[in-house]
Amino acid sequence: MAGAATQVLPRLERTLEGRDQDALAQRLASLQVLIGSDLAEVEEALRRPRRADTPAHQSAGHLLHLDGKRLRPACLALASRTGRGFNAVARDLAIAVELVHNATLLHDDVVDLGDVRRGAPTARMVYGNAASIFAGDLLLVEALERIQAAGIPGLIDRAFSVLKEMLDAESLQLANRGRVRGIAADYFKVVEGKTASLFGWALFAGGRAGGSPEPVCLALEKYGRLLGVAFQIVDDTLDVAGAETVIGKSVLTDLKEGKITWPVMRALERDPALAATLEIELAKPELPAGLAESVADAVRRANSVEEARALASGLCADAVAALSILPPSEARESLESIAAALPWRRK
Amino acid sequence: MAGAATQVLPRLERTLEGRDQDALAQRLASLQVLIGSDLAEVEEALRRPRRADTPAHQSAGHLLHLDGKRLRPACLALASRTGRGFNAVARDLAIAVELVHNATLLHDDVVDLGDVRRGAPTARMVYGNAASIFAGDLLLVEALERIQAAGIPGLIDRAFSVLKEMLDAESLQLANRGRVRGIAADYFKVVEGKTASLFGWALFAGGRAGGSPEPVCLALEKYGRLLGVAFQIVDDTLDVAGAETVIGKSVLTDLKEGKITWPVMRALERDPALAATLEIELAKPELPAGLAESVADAVRRANSVEEARALASGLCADAVAALSILPPSEARESLESIAAALPWRRK
Repeated sequence: MAGAATQVLPRLERTLEGRDQDALAQRLASLQVLIGSDLAEVEEALRRPRRADTPAHQSAGHLLHLDGKRLRPACLALASRTGRGFNAVARDLAIAVELVHNATLLHDDVVDLGDVRRGAPTARMVYGNAASIFAGDLLLVEALERIQAAGIPGLIDRAFSVLKEMLDAESLQLANRGRVRGIAADYFKVVEGKTASLFGWALFAGGRAGGSPEPVCLALEKYGRLLGVAFQIVDDTLDVAGAETVIGKSVLTDLKEGKITWPVMRALERDPALAATLEIELAKPELPAGLAESVADAVRRANSVEEARALASGLCADAVAALSILPPSEARESLESIAAALPWRRK
Repeated sequence: MAGAATQVLPRLERTLEGRDQDALAQRLASLQVLIGSDLAEVEEALRRPRRADTPAHQSAGHLLHLDGKRLRPACLALASRTGRGFNAVARDLAIAVELVHNATLLHDDVVDLGDVRRGAPTARMVYGNAASIFAGDLLLVEALERIQAAGIPGLIDRAFSVLKEMLDAESLQLANRGRVRGIAADYFKVVEGKTASLFGWALFAGGRAGGSPEPVCLALEKYGRLLGVAFQIVDDTLDVAGAETVIGKSVLTDLKEGKITWPVMRALERDPALAATLEIELAKPELPAGLAESVADAVRRANSVEEARALASGLCADAVAALSILPPSEARESLESIAAALPWRRK
């Protein structure tokens, strides 16, 4: 059970590449020593037997029992260890941040009619859309209750702000379904709202749980937000991984759902004619043959996967810089290592 | 704009019947004087122009702009007036309780594929299911943020408990789809969770906003919970109104969605053979001719509409009794009047 959680870090470690690999791999291995037991506690709580007498409750349990990367709890644990360490409050907040994340996934999968998540059928495929809607609501309320019970002044207010940012971003993404032109600004709004805001909260909350002063917590939050954007951009490059040879039809399906990845967005910005064609074709029920290949060509020509990695590297460097006011600690070094490794993750 | 809100009470007033009608009508008319301007303030806030640049945000605005009964804000306003009165905190909480209610309606309509709400197409029919899911999430977070900002210790924790009760009830109702036998106990669990708990919170919150001591607030909460159950049972009798002559096909559709009304549940308890037939037939895609008429017959034979009214009257009497520890006030008398009038409402 704990095994699932503690494999996250070695997984990241194995997927490193580049000349700094050995040094980074070594530093990431030390993460296992540093927060392995923190994550095991979080995992144990997430998988604790839950009420399962209705499809909605089963739906929530279904998702929580699948292996997730648990990146947000890992960040929160590290942030707490830049201060006095991972205590009961930090643990409860780490559980809460993962619950918020899972609540949004349950609703997202209904909205996007997602079939597969974490390598298994989505909760909605097993228990139905209706059950997954209530399951998302249930996890959200449970998360907020835990945050409030943690008793750190102001933390629940920040959680409300973050949730509004997340929902505004989801709403914007939904509104942009079918659009592929003129959405570069929206791309960053969506990523900041959907991903970066919750990473920022996790880092801030961890800082507070560890008793760090406000300026340190705000620095941690800034690190979290920058890391979150970089994380999403790298995730996007993985989505079009092998784009040099082929872009799968799933990329076009994502486009139909308003989900554009950074490399594709960038390539379309540089090929307005293709963007115009794509917008027309995406509105049709059947996608024409050859369209995916045209997008792949554009991504290749624009060299936008490489450009995305460079952008992510810059953001990660800014994230590390944000930590400069922190006192030296093993946890701070680990956060720096994560930021250094992130642009190079390959899965 | 305020007109929509302030017409609630005359509407209730007009629909009274029975020999106490004149006295009750007079007391309800005084409600208009007592809380008309409170409700106008709440209505103004609910209809204030909102962000409307995405279908999700439009979806939320769509529902809020339709005339609702605003019963929960009315109860909260009266509860505040059993103490020091309707202040800014009470107003914010009254807005919040209506936002919570509307958030649940948005998700309910997606879950039940509802077409019409408050005499207009549901938000999901206009803006889609996906937009309505996020709209519900948005209103819930906005409501919770307001409750927290009101600054009354413990009130947000009670809101979380109530939300969990509401979601557990919704989940139970969903789990019972297609069942019509052995669900009498679940009927009350669902009503208490879905309806009574939020009425109870509204009364408690109003009491706290008005500065009343804890025992008074708890008495108000008890009144609210009892009134909530009675409200739902009376609502159920209206759903089968004219059941003596005919039960519409919509009642069967409701049954398919796991929504059983008290008179139908009671009639089926007394006619196990019909209940068994119904459970089999409801599982089929087409409902056979004559089934609705058989249910109507059973309701008629069981006299269960009358029985429901009697049950509601008993609950309302208990609700009034709960208020006995309150100091005398016009607001308390109004709460008593509402409870006395409720079993006789006809629409």
